[in-house]
Amino acid sequence: MALINEHYLKLKSGYLFPEIARRVRAFQEQNPKAAIIRLGIGDVVLPLAPAIVAAMEAAVREMGQTEGFRGYGPEQGYPFLIDAILQNDFASRGVKLKNTEIFVSDGSKCDTGNIQEIFSTQNKVAVVDPVYPVYVDTNVMAGRTGELGSDAKYAGLVYMPATAENNFSPAFPNEKVDIVYLCSPNNPTGAVLDRKQLQAWVDYARKHETLLLFDVAYEAYITNPDIPHSIYEIEGAEEVAIEFRSFSKTAGFTGTRCAYTVVPEKLKCRDSKGNSVPVQPLWNRRHTTKFNGVSYPIQRGAEACYSPTGKAQIREQIDYYLTNARLIREGLKKAGLAVYGGENAPYIWLKTPQGMDSWSFFDKLLNEAHVVGTPGAGFGPSGEGYFRLSAFGIREKVIEAIERIQTRLQL
Amino acid sequence: MALINEHYLKLKSGYLFPEIARRVRAFQEQNPKAAIIRLGIGDVVLPLAPAIVAAMEAAVREMGQTEGFRGYGPEQGYPFLIDAILQNDFASRGVKLKNTEIFVSDGSKCDTGNIQEIFSTQNKVAVVDPVYPVYVDTNVMAGRTGELGSDAKYAGLVYMPATAENNFSPAFPNEKVDIVYLCSPNNPTGAVLDRKQLQAWVDYARKHETLLLFDVAYEAYITNPDIPHSIYEIEGAEEVAIEFRSFSKTAGFTGTRCAYTVVPEKLKCRDSKGNSVPVQPLWNRRHTTKFNGVSYPIQRGAEACYSPTGKAQIREQIDYYLTNARLIREGLKKAGLAVYGGENAPYIWLKTPQGMDSWSFFDKLLNEAHVVGTPGAGFGPSGEGYFRLSAFGIREKVIEAIERIQTRLQL
Repeated sequence: MALINEHYLKLKSGYLFPEIARRVRAFQEQNPKAAIIRLGIGDVVLPLAPAIVAAMEAAVREMGQTEGFRGYGPEQGYPFLIDAILQNDFASRGVKLKNTEIFVSDGSKCDTGNIQEIFSTQNKVAVVDPVYPVYVDTNVMAGRTGELGSDAKYAGLVYMPATAENNFSPAFPNEKVDIVYLCSPNNPTGAVLDRKQLQAWVDYARKHETLLLFDVAYEAYITNPDIPHSIYEIEGAEEVAIEFRSFSKTAGFTGTRCAYTVVPEKLKCRDSKGNSVPVQPLWNRRHTTKFNGVSYPIQRGAEACYSPTGKAQIREQIDYYLTNARLIREGLKKAGLAVYGGENAPYIWLKTPQGMDSWSFFDKLLNEAHVVGTPGAGFGPSGEGYFRLSAFGIREKVIEAIERIQTRLQL
Repeated sequence: MALINEHYLKLKSGYLFPEIARRVRAFQEQNPKAAIIRLGIGDVVLPLAPAIVAAMEAAVREMGQTEGFRGYGPEQGYPFLIDAILQNDFASRGVKLKNTEIFVSDGSKCDTGNIQEIFSTQNKVAVVDPVYPVYVDTNVMAGRTGELGSDAKYAGLVYMPATAENNFSPAFPNEKVDIVYLCSPNNPTGAVLDRKQLQAWVDYARKHETLLLFDVAYEAYITNPDIPHSIYEIEGAEEVAIEFRSFSKTAGFTGTRCAYTVVPEKLKCRDSKGNSVPVQPLWNRRHTTKFNGVSYPIQRGAEACYSPTGKAQIREQIDYYLTNARLIREGLKKAGLAVYGGENAPYIWLKTPQGMDSWSFFDKLLNEAHVVGTPGAGFGPSGEGYFRLSAFGIREKVIEAIERIQTRLQL
């Protein structure tokens, strides 16, 4: 008699985005003429840059010829891509990593979801609150938490509130934790950890033997030159941190799928007897056993992001979204709303007016301005009372959305 | 203090193919002029069919245009691909499945590796022996086994020997098991389960509430019209079986990456209280939480496998490999070897002569014929004394390899 993994039954059944889709659909049915503008889900809208398209086309053609055809590649990624990553994302910032420390994958959702597998289910996990839901859900599935409480928190999970009160920079946990998920620039708050804060986290982790899981999917949106782009710019981070990177938001790869994870050889955790165990071989075993590498043409597309032409074309797209972010930020401020983020991130985080709860504000925005955003409560209990708008939109729509918020929203 | 998942430490450190690569490298260094022919790893050699290349090129170009660009797609796969799958792989054989029962992924290695996650770690697992190592390794990682014994078996895992003695058709387990992995056509033995045998497995599973994990990655190589291509051709299978399918060997996608898994809505397992729980929502939750869909251009390439032109081009490739298989089979027989498989599968499974162990035969074949194969012991303890040759080779090389085995191998 096959038994299910009962930890799955602890998960909240309604995931955030399906519920948003349901409400939008219902509104559209009742208001068929309303021109809804969607700034909810964090999905890019600009097409792939010409340099990427050209590289992928060439690679597809190669696959159609006997000499150019490629079957199974290295599960960790082709050397041409790993070398480009090492050179451009790290060496250029003074960070020296080895090619064996890079693991190319088909997405940071997969990597941040799968990484917990190589660690004991006994570990105590801490997350910033609010945060990308995948960190929490995958730990629930693995049995590292208890049930969901009426306070919208899973028992056994440590929540580190990030709110306007602490400038979205959470304090260290009060209790002993083993694994901490950090995301900077943060999804959804748009907050960034500066060099000093990151150094403090690395020092904390070294002192307490805490593992840091550092997600920098939005790294390309950092505009402040004092903000590190990699945790490995911080002294000692190689001993305590795994870093997640993605081409999704950097190069519009949300539908193309490529990302990578850095597991430094110096990173060690412990077995139950207290022996020190290197983590890189564990992830290598996981990656080679349960994954078969990213499609060859896609890896060529990712490589093209690092060519001079590719870099320039991608930069233009990121600047486009950052301009959107600035317009939203300024426009909402003008409308009298308290706004955060949007300077080093493609997300604008706003305080809902008059203490409104975040789903009520969602409905209000949809009904009065025909604009779709994301309720903060969907990202964790401390997201209640906040709301996320995404800068991933076509400029004209973004401007139109701001105008509607300014003119139609009854605040 | 972050603890590792200690189950990983139970894994045999040397995986099969790296060890093969090491021995081949050493031989080549000592014999730089030897023209080695590789019939070891099961990787295709023919380029992608023109219809697939054209579809992927078009999709890549679409991604470069504002109107054609696609960001996040449905994690389960695009309807255009799911519809083509339902129509061509199932409806055409009288099997009616729903679009919500198909989960498109980037590989059967991933799917067969990940599926165990949604089931309890308390389940007793049985595998055919020898078998594709991923089934075993992923259960070791999850903690469903004990340590590896001196008999090359993991404690707590049930091995069902498939050898020449039982015509490679294992008997039902002697003890109660909860989950059974079946692979037909089998990798590595090339054996197939016929309709009667499959019906017996389904009946067994219904009677004992056993979950069947049915891997048909080599379905396209079935030549005997009496062999089912899907387990759902068998009465009652929808209640007990998950099926894994791949484009890797069907359409040369080993480096392109696309596969799918069928989880019928009728399939139910139990929670620890004995309640019946549908499995499809669990896999849907796993798939949408830890995976973000297959790259859009790749899905268009997979769709092209079902066009009339695509089908014809792919059929030609499969027939090419099947001719290779026949040549190897007949050639080895002529050389006096006992051979199995190769009729409904791209693998030829041979008994090592004079009771030689499989790694010794590997060395002998490499040294005397300069041909690389795969030692049977790498697929499980009952693979000892056997050896796998793959039909995935260029015709001229395959013929050359057979000639060398016939003339140079001292049997």
